Amino acid sequence: MNDDADVTVEFDEDGLVPAVAQDAETGEVLMLAYVSQEALDRTRETGRAHYYSRSRDELWEKGATSGHIQTVREVRVDCDADTLLYLVEQDGGACHTGYRSCFHRTIEGDVVGERVFDPDAVYDAETDGEETTETEV
Amino acid sequence: MNDDADVTVEFDEDGLVPAVAQDAETGEVLMLAYVSQEALDRTRETGRAHYYSRSRDELWEKGATSGHIQTVREVRVDCDADTLLYLVEQDGGACHTGYRSCFHRTIEGDVVGERVFDPDAVYDAETDGEETTETEV
Repeated sequence: MNDDADVTVEFDEDGLVPAVAQDAETGEVLMLAYVSQEALDRTRETGRAHYYSRSRDELWEKGATSGHIQTVREVRVDCDADTLLYLVEQDGGACHTGYRSCFHRTIEGDVVGERVFDPDAVYDAETDGEETTETEV
Repeated sequence: MNDDADVTVEFDEDGLVPAVAQDAETGEVLMLAYVSQEALDRTRETGRAHYYSRSRDELWEKGATSGHIQTVREVRVDCDADTLLYLVEQDGGACHTGYRSCFHRTIEGDVVGERVFDPDAVYDAETDGEETTETEV
């Protein structure tokens, strides 16, 4: 996975970079999460989006609990090589709250996104939606 | 700018959150930069995208040097309220390298983005394109 031609990703002091997931078809920005070298390698090897949870301190595969996987069509890097863009096909919803995108609210609090599943039917009490988000607070 | 109805943004220990700028018309993801409370307030007050440079440790207005401003149509927050999405009208290019988007390369190094201006004609030697990026390395 480390061909000479690959862009060298500039991971931060914690070994992470932010990754934006965008729907490859509609262009909708779905979520932002963090990616380690291992998460990036797994993403490229499997074609399914992997991230690194800062709160749980572990690698996670999007959709492992919910089934709402992201099939990664392409990985892009920005000019500084310190941010990634995953172009994905999103099964179901990206957000653990049931919305297709995590960015379903304006800063004024208006809901503008589409709810596509019932989180209570997808996550049990134990996982509590943690699979698709990383609540740092 | 802090109406009761506004979503409370969860800035990190450095007082920042990442913000993704997306073209409101085309859906193209243009760049990711960081935003402080002051940058967010200035963005909402002026309708022009402001960010906070971690490398220069200062507030900056996108386009102040290049003229390639971002007119912000809407600010969205994600489910954890620790990432912002700016929906913008981008004048010229977002990237200091002359590309419309900072995400103009695949991780394999293939150029997939559109170059829309000549950076040598926009930035002088002194600013060296710093206005539109924040090189942390």
